Amino acid sequence: MSDGTTGWRPLRLWHCCSYQTLQKRLPVLQWLPRYSLHCLKLDVIAGFTIGLTVVPQGLAYADVAGLPDQYGLYSSFMGCFVYCLMGTSKDVTLGPTAIMSLLVSFYTFGDPAFAVLMTFLSGCIQLAMGLLCLGFLLDFISYPVIKGFTLAASVTIGFSQIKNLLGLHNIPQQFFLQVYQTFRRIGETRAGDATLGVLSIAALLVLKRMKSHIPRVHRGMPLWLRLCSLIVWVTATARNALLVIAAGLIAYSFQVMGSQPFILTGKTTEGLPPFRPPPFSKASVNGTVPFVRMVQDMGAGVGIIPFMGLLESIAIAKAFGITNILGSFVSSYPVTGSFGRTAVNAETGVCTPAGGLITGALVLLSLAYLTPLFFYIPKAALAAVIICAVAPMFDTKVFRTLWKVKKLDLVPFFATFLLCFWEVQYGILAGVIVSGILLLYPVARPQIKVYDHEDLVVKPLNGLSFPATEYIRDRVYEVALAVSPPRSVVLDCDHVSSIDYTVLAGLEDLQREFERKGVSLTFSDLQDPVLRVLLAAEFTGPHQFHNQEEARG
Amino acid sequence: MSDGTTGWRPLRLWHCCSYQTLQKRLPVLQWLPRYSLHCLKLDVIAGFTIGLTVVPQGLAYADVAGLPDQYGLYSSFMGCFVYCLMGTSKDVTLGPTAIMSLLVSFYTFGDPAFAVLMTFLSGCIQLAMGLLCLGFLLDFISYPVIKGFTLAASVTIGFSQIKNLLGLHNIPQQFFLQVYQTFRRIGETRAGDATLGVLSIAALLVLKRMKSHIPRVHRGMPLWLRLCSLIVWVTATARNALLVIAAGLIAYSFQVMGSQPFILTGKTTEGLPPFRPPPFSKASVNGTVPFVRMVQDMGAGVGIIPFMGLLESIAIAKAFGITNILGSFVSSYPVTGSFGRTAVNAETGVCTPAGGLITGALVLLSLAYLTPLFFYIPKAALAAVIICAVAPMFDTKVFRTLWKVKKLDLVPFFATFLLCFWEVQYGILAGVIVSGILLLYPVARPQIKVYDHEDLVVKPLNGLSFPATEYIRDRVYEVALAVSPPRSVVLDCDHVSSIDYTVLAGLEDLQREFERKGVSLTFSDLQDPVLRVLLAAEFTGPHQFHNQEEARG
Repeated sequence: MSDGTTGWRPLRLWHCCSYQTLQKRLPVLQWLPRYSLHCLKLDVIAGFTIGLTVVPQGLAYADVAGLPDQYGLYSSFMGCFVYCLMGTSKDVTLGPTAIMSLLVSFYTFGDPAFAVLMTFLSGCIQLAMGLLCLGFLLDFISYPVIKGFTLAASVTIGFSQIKNLLGLHNIPQQFFLQVYQTFRRIGETRAGDATLGVLSIAALLVLKRMKSHIPRVHRGMPLWLRLCSLIVWVTATARNALLVIAAGLIAYSFQVMGSQPFILTGKTTEGLPPFRPPPFSKASVNGTVPFVRMVQDMGAGVGIIPFMGLLESIAIAKAFGITNILGSFVSSYPVTGSFGRTAVNAETGVCTPAGGLITGALVLLSLAYLTPLFFYIPKAALAAVIICAVAPMFDTKVFRTLWKVKKLDLVPFFATFLLCFWEVQYGILAGVIVSGILLLYPVARPQIKVYDHEDLVVKPLNGLSFPATEYIRDRVYEVALAVSPPRSVVLDCDHVSSIDYTVLAGLEDLQREFERKGVSLTFSDLQDPVLRVLLAAEFTGPHQFHNQEEARG
Repeated sequence: MSDGTTGWRPLRLWHCCSYQTLQKRLPVLQWLPRYSLHCLKLDVIAGFTIGLTVVPQGLAYADVAGLPDQYGLYSSFMGCFVYCLMGTSKDVTLGPTAIMSLLVSFYTFGDPAFAVLMTFLSGCIQLAMGLLCLGFLLDFISYPVIKGFTLAASVTIGFSQIKNLLGLHNIPQQFFLQVYQTFRRIGETRAGDATLGVLSIAALLVLKRMKSHIPRVHRGMPLWLRLCSLIVWVTATARNALLVIAAGLIAYSFQVMGSQPFILTGKTTEGLPPFRPPPFSKASVNGTVPFVRMVQDMGAGVGIIPFMGLLESIAIAKAFGITNILGSFVSSYPVTGSFGRTAVNAETGVCTPAGGLITGALVLLSLAYLTPLFFYIPKAALAAVIICAVAPMFDTKVFRTLWKVKKLDLVPFFATFLLCFWEVQYGILAGVIVSGILLLYPVARPQIKVYDHEDLVVKPLNGLSFPATEYIRDRVYEVALAVSPPRSVVLDCDHVSSIDYTVLAGLEDLQREFERKGVSLTFSDLQDPVLRVLLAAEFTGPHQFHNQEEARG
């Protein structure tokens, strides 16, 4: 085993062109040679299950993103194919997610041209982050910030569906206006939609609950019990698709009978999306909007969306980047890994990323043949699908945990949570800044120990870097001048492993001040790199560098 | 002497209302009771000397700031009076400076209304920073950034005066355009201005040099030698004023003779500035520009100018803030401490801040009675004054020092230096960001030591905070899985003094992964606060908390 100090990972240039490297770049080569029939069976089941989840979710999330419904499906298949080739984890599924849809709605103004261009740009940025190893940037988004953002997103998304659940029209997009208008016009609730919506949520919850209570199937069980378990499992796992189909059938029956109590999805563009480059400019009534203007309009979103898409892990940056770049050619909006569907995938016992092929095919088939049927899907049913998908994100246990673990972490958490309701980028920025301040405070105000041991000894307990310069200088000066006549000071640098130019300049200042007062400032226990810097800077004078014994005696 | 760990300075509430506190708030009370005739003599000489420097410099700096000449003088007296009451250092002089003038020219578009409003806002922000103890923000501007900015400013200011030195008209403000146009039109140089300008610079340099070579006066010297020394000293110290007077006289003689080879300062508004509140709105040809719009127009300057004004020390934030707030009532533009004049003050042997009263009076008298005479001051002479004032800021030794002390510090230095030519705020921002990255890198990628001592021991050598979570997790995982079957790992937390929620979540993930692989992750040498957090978070399992001996055995 390696024994030593390893701050850097060595560059492994000699690995550059081997088959192993190719396998690393294209993980499909790792599992395909060992693929078995058993795997195929499991992957088909899992792929089919995910497909039955992603189709209704895609239709629903498109509404969150403020885009026409078919865009949810356009966004759902490219990730399956790309991840099949490049994916490293068998469970992860890429596609439209609630959070990404919310972000897209903020930054692309319900305009597919902006959304598709955003997909392309996000892909490029993610790919660049992967290739340039910029993953460390993501490390500065702490969990409290992520939790605060997720919690705010779940509230925003959940609430945005209340209007569809109740059948209210013309509710504004902005969260606060939405809350205000929804409550003001709650009297306009349509009985049909509200009934269907509430029943749908109830059905989804019951099915989800049933799924977690299915008894473990084993060979000793009677056949009918195993069959029942299987039926319950299938129903519960495909609950989103079944609900949407059932609601659609009900709506269709009403339509046939000549009345329609529900607001329906309505006409959806039929067929597969065209394959074409993303729109780098856009025709509008006032002439063409050029590329630069489109990017300016999307503003902070161009940074936020690719960034949030990678929050789970930078390891997937390249796969996600390529998915988005290719996706932008088939009118996808930005996609990322879906926690919910990934969990379903894992539960269903997927064996390799090949399951994605089935899912992708199912989405393409839906687009090709089912779009006319989407007309009858009631919006309230889709709203129920979304609300049940984001409900687990509303995880309030995090308050309790933060309170117990580190109360200060509640500050970035609440800063993010509250500001995200105003604008997402401010929320995240505020959270990152607050976490940064908490991180830097001990760097700027290091702990100092003061001993009296013949001379006064001042000992910084951690490192010494530039933001601490003024503070250390003031403290040493204060300690030395606290008595009259002023006393000499020994600065114990035992814990100081490096110093920079600012610290050096501060120490020079201090030494000059000490000379003026006729007392001395000496250094003890200097580590080699620090001593070398002091000598290089011609920071000299008699008796400056002692080891502590000398300095004291 | 205090013996213990002191990370915070205690709040001294009981000091709040004593006479000592009043003395601290109004330092004039410290020195006035002990004021002597000897002090008076020294202060009058120093105050007069500074006055003779600040009047020509004020006129000249107003040109750098892009404001009418009298604004330089309007800005020169309030600081003297305020600092006399509130000043803690006898040497410091407040007033217009080259760097502040440059910043003002960037952000106030040569419009006195904007400049005066900027003064007021800067004062408020500085006062607030002083009262709210926000000085720590300044700690994050490292010396390389300050040096880079100063160097860039000296080049920009020095070059901006070349056009006046050569008598060129209509040279644009922007640095790169200025360089281009100045060189392109160098053929249009006016002989008179260029001659006067070059001779002025030569005269100022010679006088400055002479001053540093005056032999030390002592009682044994013959009287004529002491007299000569005195004359040289006076001439050299008042060189700026003498040069401007001489150049003015020459210009006046030419005027009387009916020809004028120099570009003159021209008509200046006569008399003292009116005392009135700063302009909170502004009449323009398109109607009134409201306050909010004016602030928006000044943009980043509203942050940069008060900040740069305090770079020397936050200790003076309140005095500087009050100077600027009061200054804005007498049409001052933002002022700060002048390094050059402070040095002159110290050399001249000033005794108390009372010298400022004489300086202020001299400025007011100049404004009241001398403004008509300013007409004849050639611009080339003022340009020479500025160039000689900023020349010492062009300190190239800093390259060598940074190279020797810490080569990495050259990165923020050059980032700031180069970007400041584009726009000052980008230069400073880039410098701060680069220094911040250098500061945070070891926090995000802490050094780790790996031992093999029965179990594998992984030991982070510094603290463990949230940006390091992913890195530590990956490293531990990598180390454990490097062999097959995977090995158990002991995480030695000897150097970890606190952990946050993100780290905790990372460790939980890691432990789950380890359990899945059937190996164990244990912790050793936990410090009390860390152990307490782990227990509070119900981070349990058998045999997790060992001291290292147990963990090894």
